[in-house]
This record gives sequence, structure tokens and C-alpha cells, in this order.
Amino acid sequence: MKKRVFSGIRPTGRIHLGNYLGAVQNYVAMQDEFECIYCVVDIHALTTLEDTHLLKENVREMITDLLAAGLDPEKCALFVQSHVPEVTELFTLLGMVTPLSWLLRVPTFKEKVKQQPQNVNYGLVGYPVLMTADIVLYKAEVVPVGEDQLPHLELAREIVRRFNDHFGETFPEPKARMTTFPMVVGLDGREKMSKSLNNHIELAATPEETMKKVMGAVTDPARMRRADPGHPEVCNIYKLQQNFNPQVIDEIAEGCRSASRGCVECKKQLGASINEFLAPIRVRRIEIAKDQAYIDRVMKEGAEKARALARVTITEVKQRMGLL
Amino acid sequence: MKKRVFSGIRPTGRIHLGNYLGAVQNYVAMQDEFECIYCVVDIHALTTLEDTHLLKENVREMITDLLAAGLDPEKCALFVQSHVPEVTELFTLLGMVTPLSWLLRVPTFKEKVKQQPQNVNYGLVGYPVLMTADIVLYKAEVVPVGEDQLPHLELAREIVRRFNDHFGETFPEPKARMTTFPMVVGLDGREKMSKSLNNHIELAATPEETMKKVMGAVTDPARMRRADPGHPEVCNIYKLQQNFNPQVIDEIAEGCRSASRGCVECKKQLGASINEFLAPIRVRRIEIAKDQAYIDRVMKEGAEKARALARVTITEVKQRMGLL
Ligand code: SF4
Ligand code: SF4
Repeated sequence: MKKRVFSGIRPTGRIHLGNYLGAVQNYVAMQDEFECIYCVVDIHALTTLEDTHLLKENVREMITDLLAAGLDPEKCALFVQSHVPEVTELFTLLGMVTPLSWLLRVPTFKEKVKQQPQNVNYGLVGYPVLMTADIVLYKAEVVPVGEDQLPHLELAREIVRRFNDHFGETFPEPKARMTTFPMVVGLDGREKMSKSLNNHIELAATPEETMKKVMGAVTDPARMRRADPGHPEVCNIYKLQQNFNPQVIDEIAEGCRSASRGCVECKKQLGASINEFLAPIRVRRIEIAKDQAYIDRVMKEGAEKARALARVTITEVKQRMGLL
Repeated sequence: MKKRVFSGIRPTGRIHLGNYLGAVQNYVAMQDEFECIYCVVDIHALTTLEDTHLLKENVREMITDLLAAGLDPEKCALFVQSHVPEVTELFTLLGMVTPLSWLLRVPTFKEKVKQQPQNVNYGLVGYPVLMTADIVLYKAEVVPVGEDQLPHLELAREIVRRFNDHFGETFPEPKARMTTFPMVVGLDGREKMSKSLNNHIELAATPEETMKKVMGAVTDPARMRRADPGHPEVCNIYKLQQNFNPQVIDEIAEGCRSASRGCVECKKQLGASINEFLAPIRVRRIEIAKDQAYIDRVMKEGAEKARALARVTITEVKQRMGLL
């Protein structure tokens, strides 16, 4: 029997190359090995009470991109968190066994308190409890995480242990699946690729937009003239080349160092490779976006699939806690 | 149009005279003046994670007693909190606009932290948020409260204001209906009547049990012999006489002070009056308890009535917050 994987996906809107290489590609790959539960976590997006008027649109764009990127609703459960209200029941109930002190010492929580002390709401404190509810509502055994999320998963395991201790063995302790995601640097060559820094390339961008963004990217800052030798190890374009042209990566490095290769040429090659790579995804995206009813159906059927599992868990939890 | 009242009822099990005179009698009376939403709050009972194996039975006993006492499922909505899961959705969402600092300064919270510092769970901190969700899920305008609950209601009003400010006018600010409930002293003559002190008389007790409990009660401790004059103002039986024999209360006081009335006689009179008062309630209780399917139906139909209102509110809230 396949193990069950859960992953929560922040509805940040359109997926960019950084998301794709860093996570989505892995979601697609896991579909065959695991029983995958993929949840676009719109309630989590409210924990910092930012402007929410784009939330719905962002969720929809995200689902569209995930489908285009290869998530298959026949293979996985792809749905929106708030469409499975059982998660809020479990969140409420898990809160009864979660010491406040555990939550106050979570590193990401402390950071957010520092950043915006005026915006520390009860929901923000409970972020890890909601995340735990997300995972264990489906009794998921495996959660793909990056290094930075390990403390959250450890906390989820502690909450599970405390619940099981109090009310009897109910949930499996979810295990981390450490995935060595490449950290994709943005086109500014400095920061992680992200929408807010506008150093990104959307999957849904046109080939022209993509080429323009790549051509405008920062390369080796020490290479002032075409004739200067370059330093691929400090060049951001080179990092992306490692992803998109691995088969000729040694030639690229060599050509850069010997100045036989110019940056314009190098970027053109990269832009073309990215466009080639994204072409089938973009074709699918256009098809899918044309059929908004299909997207609605995917979300609806995904939520139904998830709720069927969720209802079983919630009934068991309520029985164990004496509510049923 | 009748105003809507909400009241949450703790599932402490069988109702005793203190509950009845202090609150339930008022619930019955309000049924004609208001549209009443009466909710047995089983999720709240989990906030201190006490032993929960009696919870379900306590809820059922409570509903049985409430019906026997005169709550009419045709007039009011009588249901169990966890049967309307929308309340946990609203709790989760209201948590996003509730500053943690507001919750940490609630007097009852601080008290509980002092009493059992090892048991301060996230759910306990969120008690007032869940209470707010209870009330505003039905857009109740009026909440009957005692003095001690006023800070909770004030907090509920603050949460409502904050939500309305952020997301537009959604909820009415619930108003307190201060009710001058008599504080019913227990048969020990010292503490408030309560189950845990076993100084109480259950509505469901037999006349014999009732008489026995009354006959064993403490009276004026200074009245050692039958011939000693008594002091009704310090006598607990006298307080209960004020409830059950108000029409002859002056004679009782006079007889006590002049020692023409003995305590045994006085208690016999009180016991008889209590039994007379409770007789119709007890008859109904026996009838209702015979028909467990009826109790199930009441709970089910009550939850359906409540959910019909709850769904409308939750949809509106989700739309306002950008989830729908
Ligand atoms: S040639 Fe390519 S790898 Fe070398 S600095 Fe220019 S863009 Fe970077
Ligand atoms: S006679 Fe009645 S009121 Fe007076 S002390 Fe005895 S029990 Fe109390």
C-alpha cells in the first residue's frame, strides 16, 4: 500500500520557476510513489491578516498552474483548505491538547512578533496547530519539508503524541521527507526567486516576457566588457543554466571563463531553454484556463475526496474526546 | 420582530435547584419574549481537558432536564455545540482578528493559569473567541449574563467591532441582558449550590431523596436546642424558604425568632414545598427519559435549525474574508 503524503501549498498566486523547481516538480513526481493530498491553504493565508481581496483569485491561479504543471486530479487529491471545514473542527479540538508555551517558542512565530508586533493575533499563534490539523486530518504519514519547516513538523509530532497519550492511539506521527530542493535564485542574482521581489519568471509568462526578463538579469558583476573573462560560480544565470542545460554545463563554464562566450548569447540560450522547458506546461495552462468549469470541478471533486477521509477522522476524534 | 437571544449552557449533567432558580427558569421565561438559541456547550467543556468520559452522558441528562423544566423545542433552538461544526469555522476565522494580548488579560483566564499552570492549552486561551463565535454565528443581539461573565461579553463586543472594521459591518454587537439571578446557597449553608460540593438537590431526585437532603441541611448554627431562638438571616433554609414559601415568609421568620417554630418542622415544610414545586417537572422528566429517541430527535432537529442560521453567517463571513 502506498504511504499517504500531505503537503500544504500557500496560495501566493501564479507559480514561478522558483516554486516549480523548488517544490511543484517534486509534487508531480510523488504522485506515483505516494497517495498524495495537496491542499491549497487559504485559511493559513489569513493568519497575518494581510489584504485578502486577491486571495480567491490567487487560489484559482495556483490550482490552474498546478494542473498545468502536471498534478493529476485522478491520482492525487487537490483541493482548497477552507472547502474542507472539518479541518477547523480538528484545529479547535487539537488546541485543547496543545500547551500555549509550545506555540510561543516556535522560531517563525517569534520572528513574526518581531516584524509586526501590532499584528499578533490568536490565529497566528495557532498556525502550527492548524498545520497539524491539516496533516493529521488525513492521517498522513509523510510530509515533504524544507529545512526551515522542520520545527513545525516536530511540533506537529509533539501534538500528535500528546493527543495519542490522552485519548488513545489515533494518529500516526507524521514523518518529514527532507527534499533537497534547489534554492532558486531570482533574476536579480541576490535573493531567492519570489513574486514580491519581481525577480521571477511565471510559468504562465509568454515566451517573449520570459526572454525579456532573462535578458535583463544580472550576471557576473565583475565582467564589465565582452572580452573580460567571467566567473560562473558567482553568476546567477549560470545557476539557472545548471537547471536547464545540465548536459552542456561544462562548456558554458569554460566558455565564460575564457570569454569565448558572451553574456548576451548565454542568456539567449537560457531563455530559449526555459521557454522550451515550459512550452508544454504553457500549452496545458492555456487549455485549462479556457475551461473555468473544469477548474471548479477539480476543486469540488478534490474537496469531496478529502472530506470523505476527513469525516472518518473527525468522527473518530470526537468519539475519543467524548463528544460522540 | 423578536430579538434573538443566545445562551451557552455548560454540560454539567443533571440540573439542580441552584441551576434552575439561577438560570433555567429564566431560559424558560425568555422563550416567549425572544427568539431563543440555547446551546449546550460541549466543546467548551474540553478547554480544561478534564476527564471527558462522562461528557456525552452529561449532555444528554442536561437536555432531558432542560426539556422537563419547560424548554420547548418548538419555540427555541435547543442543540449541542459540537453538532453545529460551523462554530469551529467561525472560531478559526475570528481568531485571525483577535489580538493575543486581549485574551491573555481576561480575568478568568488569569485565574485558571494560577490554578493549574501546567494545563494552559491553546484552547483555553481561545475560550472567549469560541464564546464569541457561539454568539455571533447566530447574529444574536442579546446574551443573558451574570456579573462574572461581563468581561467575556465585553471582549466579544471588541472582537465583533474589530471584525466589522476590517471586513465591513457583518455582526451586531451583542448586548448583555443583566439578569438578577438569585445566588442559591447549598444545603451546607456556606457555598453556592453545586454538584461538586454535593450540597445540591437535583430536579430529578425523588421526593424521598429531596426530603432526606433537606432534613440533613445546616440551619442557624447558634440554635443548639429547640427552645433557643433562631436567626433566620443567617439560616440557609430560610433563604430557600424565601424562594419556595414567599407567601408565609414573615410567619416563618417570626416563628423562628420566637422559637415557636422548630427547625425540623421548618425543614419538613421546605422539603414538601420543593417537592410540590418540582412534581410536574419530575413527571415530565420521567416521561421524556422513557423516550430516548425523542431526545435524539430534539438534538438533531435543534442542530438542523441552528445550522440553517449558521450556514448563512459562515457563507457571508467567508465571502467578506475573501475565501469565497
Ligand atoms: S557568460 Fe553566462 S555564465 Fe558567464 S557571466 Fe555571462 S551569463 Fe554568466
Ligand atoms: S426554624 Fe427554619 S429558619 Fe429558623 S433556624 Fe430553623 S430552619 Fe432556619
